[in-house]
Amino acid sequence: MELIQICENARTASRALARLDAGRKNEVLRACAKALTERSEYVLEENAKDLAAARAKGMKESLLDRLMLTDDRIQGIAEGLAQVADLEDPIGEVLGMKKRPNGLLIGQKRVPLGVVGMIYEARPNVTADAFALCFKTGNACILKGGSDAIHSNIAIVDILRATLEKAGVTADAVQLITDTSHESTGQLMKMNGYLDVLIPRGGAGLIRSVVENSTVPVIETGTGNCHVYVDESADLDMAVNIILNAKTQRIGTCNTCESLVIHEKVAEELLPKLAERLSAKGVEMRCDERALSLIPAGVPATEEDWGREYLDLILSIKTVSSFDEAVAHINRYNTGHSESIVTRDYGNAQRFLDEIDAAAVYVNASTRFTDGFEFGFGAEIGISTQKLHARGPMGLLALTTTKFIIYGNGQIRK
Amino acid sequence: MELIQICENARTASRALARLDAGRKNEVLRACAKALTERSEYVLEENAKDLAAARAKGMKESLLDRLMLTDDRIQGIAEGLAQVADLEDPIGEVLGMKKRPNGLLIGQKRVPLGVVGMIYEARPNVTADAFALCFKTGNACILKGGSDAIHSNIAIVDILRATLEKAGVTADAVQLITDTSHESTGQLMKMNGYLDVLIPRGGAGLIRSVVENSTVPVIETGTGNCHVYVDESADLDMAVNIILNAKTQRIGTCNTCESLVIHEKVAEELLPKLAERLSAKGVEMRCDERALSLIPAGVPATEEDWGREYLDLILSIKTVSSFDEAVAHINRYNTGHSESIVTRDYGNAQRFLDEIDAAAVYVNASTRFTDGFEFGFGAEIGISTQKLHARGPMGLLALTTTKFIIYGNGQIRK
Repeated sequence: MELIQICENARTASRALARLDAGRKNEVLRACAKALTERSEYVLEENAKDLAAARAKGMKESLLDRLMLTDDRIQGIAEGLAQVADLEDPIGEVLGMKKRPNGLLIGQKRVPLGVVGMIYEARPNVTADAFALCFKTGNACILKGGSDAIHSNIAIVDILRATLEKAGVTADAVQLITDTSHESTGQLMKMNGYLDVLIPRGGAGLIRSVVENSTVPVIETGTGNCHVYVDESADLDMAVNIILNAKTQRIGTCNTCESLVIHEKVAEELLPKLAERLSAKGVEMRCDERALSLIPAGVPATEEDWGREYLDLILSIKTVSSFDEAVAHINRYNTGHSESIVTRDYGNAQRFLDEIDAAAVYVNASTRFTDGFEFGFGAEIGISTQKLHARGPMGLLALTTTKFIIYGNGQIRK
Repeated sequence: MELIQICENARTASRALARLDAGRKNEVLRACAKALTERSEYVLEENAKDLAAARAKGMKESLLDRLMLTDDRIQGIAEGLAQVADLEDPIGEVLGMKKRPNGLLIGQKRVPLGVVGMIYEARPNVTADAFALCFKTGNACILKGGSDAIHSNIAIVDILRATLEKAGVTADAVQLITDTSHESTGQLMKMNGYLDVLIPRGGAGLIRSVVENSTVPVIETGTGNCHVYVDESADLDMAVNIILNAKTQRIGTCNTCESLVIHEKVAEELLPKLAERLSAKGVEMRCDERALSLIPAGVPATEEDWGREYLDLILSIKTVSSFDEAVAHINRYNTGHSESIVTRDYGNAQRFLDEIDAAAVYVNASTRFTDGFEFGFGAEIGISTQKLHARGPMGLLALTTTKFIIYGNGQIRK
């Protein structure tokens, strides 16, 4: 089907979806969960085709694992749909109505965005997940998954659309672009007037390409060069725990700590014992000169290290001689994601929260908590590192907008 | 100065501005107002140069008028600055802190965007206005005004910067790009990492160019193809008043009514008397067939008319045979700005508010009220017709974002 037709279908569907009440949407989501479980064999068959093709072209094991579905994983996807059904529906809430001096009653009502485009890579679970979040918020979605997962994605979308139709809801609530060429991605990014937002989910390359080429508004989900700063007043045992956790609990995520910043007054006491613990976990330490003198196992850091998101068992270590130097260093090199201070000083804690420019700023906690589920949103579309519209972990609210509703009785402007 | 240097200055300034308290910001804004009044002669001299150059190249009278400053107008600009000082400062507010089961206390704090870029056309008052709104919200701004107003803009920014310096605040809170070439505009639109947002203010051409070419996130302030729909149950006297006001009170604004949609059951009674009133105001009526049969002075509308923002004494008139047809017509042709229904029917009023997709939806009032001052925001940066970040009239809040602040006591993720 032509992209323009897909876009028009989505626009039409979005009008109908905006009017569905929460009860109906939740029924449909639960029916979709049930259908996915019941038809898991079909999904597995199609997924096997994707896996065979991927193996044939020599895909790495770690990527094959991301592509692979199993009965358990399909069960997990279905449970995800049911969980979204259980969340509160944000649509329709009116945020504070005010009466103006001329008698106009003006309020802001929370409404769907309309049509959401999602461009993502090889994980087929994103297909069901993105649909669920968009559908719950009354949006139609147009999905463009990676070519490696095309059979799996077609199967999942088939099941979702059949379930929607059976429930008497427009199947165009979810449409998959099956033309997996780069050209079709390029076209999608220019569909102003049809798409209200485009959300890229995937690696840095994909996200950069969408930010650079899309004329449709984008929500940028980003990379994380996250720091832990150990202040001179820090509880050093707490610091060790937090750094270990932030660096090693799961190394491939955007909220993982990539750089340690440490006040020189506590470096001598902290670094040797911290280095031992990090070494035991296999972490390579890239150190500035002062840190290197305290960590025999360390290697020298280069300027480039301060700006790196390693996503690996590597940590850069920078010593500073003041709180101000720490703040300046972090604000210079961070990516606006998550930053933490370990301190016992009230003033420095408050200043860190004020002065660090990032989506999430912590006192005495691991950066690993930056996550929609950990923050209590019950769902996550991604973590925004831009400042417009949504910043930090995005739950259902990020897929909504507002409109002003105004009740009058004949008012005209003077 | 090189653009990159301007951007770096702005980024540095933004860190300092984010820490200013409201009292200090208000003092500075009032000092700027005073300085503009005191140095009005200098501004008028520089403005005279712009006017002379504009006349020499044959600028239209209406545009010359927009470019021209007078003592009164400078007084007005100064009063605008003082009014922004009087507004409540939104920065620093913490929106609802919640305690998570693991003891983390998580809240969202309102903070400045950082660096705001503003591209605008020939009105020099925008220069002071944009600075005031950005400064009040703790943002550094980079201004790119039209080449026609360059001397006036330089003079105004000189005065603002001198006042900032005298007050001990970084003068880089406001910087003007004096290279008025299109190339420099193009460069500004690619300054990701420095600019947090770019706001175009001006005609449709400027806005389209920024939306199409900017890789920096944009807040699109838009055009308005606004409708008034007269329902079959409407109070027809009220309908006449609202249409007259919405069409003729000020024809050049984006919230002006450009199209009348009328239920056929009331067309016969309403249109002849409405046409008389509109004709008296010099309004040309472009009618569909049914409307034309009731308005001898009308002219036939073409398909193209339904999508036009005339910004002129022209109104298109479309008759419909049902409420649903009216909603479908408006949602098809509108630009997402302001739409109004005139009705006495409770159900249709509520459905119109629900089903019309626009930034502002009215029952029984003129579309002309879509305006930051009329909505009680005390200031306006523009009217957003996009759905991300801000929709409808934008006050100070549109120049802010939030960050998550998290208070812990050693929490690590399990």
